[in-house]
Amino acid sequence: MMIPIDAKTGVCALIGNPVKHSFSPLIHNAAFKEAGLNLVYVAFPVKEKNLGPAIQGLSALAIRGASITIPHKVAATRHVGWIDPVAARIGSINTIVNDSGNLKGYNSDGMGALKALQDRGVSPEGKRILIVGSGGAARGIAFTLAMRARLAGLVIVGVIRNEVAVLVDNLRTVTEAPVEGDAMEEGTLRSHLSACDMVINCTPVGMYPKVQESPVPKAFLREGLVVFDVVYNPLQTQLLRDAGSTGCHTISGVEMFINQAVVQFELWTGVKAPEAIMKKVILEQVSGR
Amino acid sequence: MMIPIDAKTGVCALIGNPVKHSFSPLIHNAAFKEAGLNLVYVAFPVKEKNLGPAIQGLSALAIRGASITIPHKVAATRHVGWIDPVAARIGSINTIVNDSGNLKGYNSDGMGALKALQDRGVSPEGKRILIVGSGGAARGIAFTLAMRARLAGLVIVGVIRNEVAVLVDNLRTVTEAPVEGDAMEEGTLRSHLSACDMVINCTPVGMYPKVQESPVPKAFLREGLVVFDVVYNPLQTQLLRDAGSTGCHTISGVEMFINQAVVQFELWTGVKAPEAIMKKVILEQVSGR
Repeated sequence: MMIPIDAKTGVCALIGNPVKHSFSPLIHNAAFKEAGLNLVYVAFPVKEKNLGPAIQGLSALAIRGASITIPHKVAATRHVGWIDPVAARIGSINTIVNDSGNLKGYNSDGMGALKALQDRGVSPEGKRILIVGSGGAARGIAFTLAMRARLAGLVIVGVIRNEVAVLVDNLRTVTEAPVEGDAMEEGTLRSHLSACDMVINCTPVGMYPKVQESPVPKAFLREGLVVFDVVYNPLQTQLLRDAGSTGCHTISGVEMFINQAVVQFELWTGVKAPEAIMKKVILEQVSGR
Repeated sequence: MMIPIDAKTGVCALIGNPVKHSFSPLIHNAAFKEAGLNLVYVAFPVKEKNLGPAIQGLSALAIRGASITIPHKVAATRHVGWIDPVAARIGSINTIVNDSGNLKGYNSDGMGALKALQDRGVSPEGKRILIVGSGGAARGIAFTLAMRARLAGLVIVGVIRNEVAVLVDNLRTVTEAPVEGDAMEEGTLRSHLSACDMVINCTPVGMYPKVQESPVPKAFLREGLVVFDVVYNPLQTQLLRDAGSTGCHTISGVEMFINQAVVQFELWTGVKAPEAIMKKVILEQVSGR
């Protein structure tokens, strides 16, 4: 991605470790260029012990905004002056906006998931949703859906019992919808899937290189079910292939990935993100692997 | 300047206030591109109260190196872990090298001036040198010449008596050559010029927009004298025009400016700077004004 740099070029940054394989610089630089903004996006590898000074540095250096990625999403919440209420419940941020030196934290992962649903004409309103997994992605999506929509029900299944229990307990404080936790087993998946309108895979199952694996047996899927997989590498996971051939409504993780970047772009710049070019860049990158 | 940016692109930075009109991003980005290095140079406007966190941020964000400019050159010395001995005497740094998290401070202004002389085949060894002015530029050049060459004599003339006295006193601790300070008046200029081999203008006299002014009356110049003007805007100052028409050896401030950038580039990257492209970019910029 070639972009022009002069003394007036504003800077946005990725903070994580490692950062070398991130697509974010390509996506955001393409978007800045397309939108005609004199901004550049660079990646900074930051060690855990340096996170505090790194984030204070964002403010001191007048860096416009940042993406926060693994392993800093939780710890970064301690170094910003204000946290979006949904991100505060999630307990992690992946986006920082520098508002005249005041750093504000957001979590665009959940917002990206919600926008991916809306872009496909799928509203979570009144839906019964099954989330598979209880880690960071599950927390981000579960709180965003529970706080931004009136769900008819929310079920979390996962292999780490205590993590599931904490997430269910936390979710009950923010939604009046029934929230339930369960173990991730064939029997529980079968019964919850039969009662839900939508399933969202928030586990890494099916991710490259174990591309033949799926978190949900194909036999439990049915026509009309919404199947959303946060995994985007490969673009078509085994779960999405099974869902597609069963007549489910499928939504790929790449749509969430693009939309979380769209949300970041709009938080930093205040202007509408050029979604088409961002989508083009990420699809080229993911397909090229 | 178009340069490619991806997740592996390393970052160098300018820290100053204001930074908007700096040529450094254009020069260094052209040089990185020419040298085939995956590096980008961006400018950060930093307020004085934020200098400490900004410099700590360089280290935490793994920024490779930085240029420090007005108003931070003196204060920045307090925020690095090691200072080059010449820069320590000068009392200011304009370059930071991030050596695996350890920040090292240098002053490439004086080194750039020395290199500008050497590039033109002018050695300061055994010379009697008159420096006009006693501010930051004068300190940088005076200490670099006094510590890196055996001068036959060094005279500082300036309008701020106390500043001249301090500089002369400081210089005497680092050189065995006779060092003398004097007021900046017609009489003193005439007599010192007649005894010196080289005069270096370190005042802003002659800088745009007052381009007809010169710090030294033309009548005091003579054939064979080396006349070096740190002012580079305009490229041909009144002093250099007078010197050229009198048969002096002239060296322009732009040569020092290019060479201080060359020194920075080599300190950050460890590879030989592509001087020709750096010179081309700066000449285009200065001529275009």
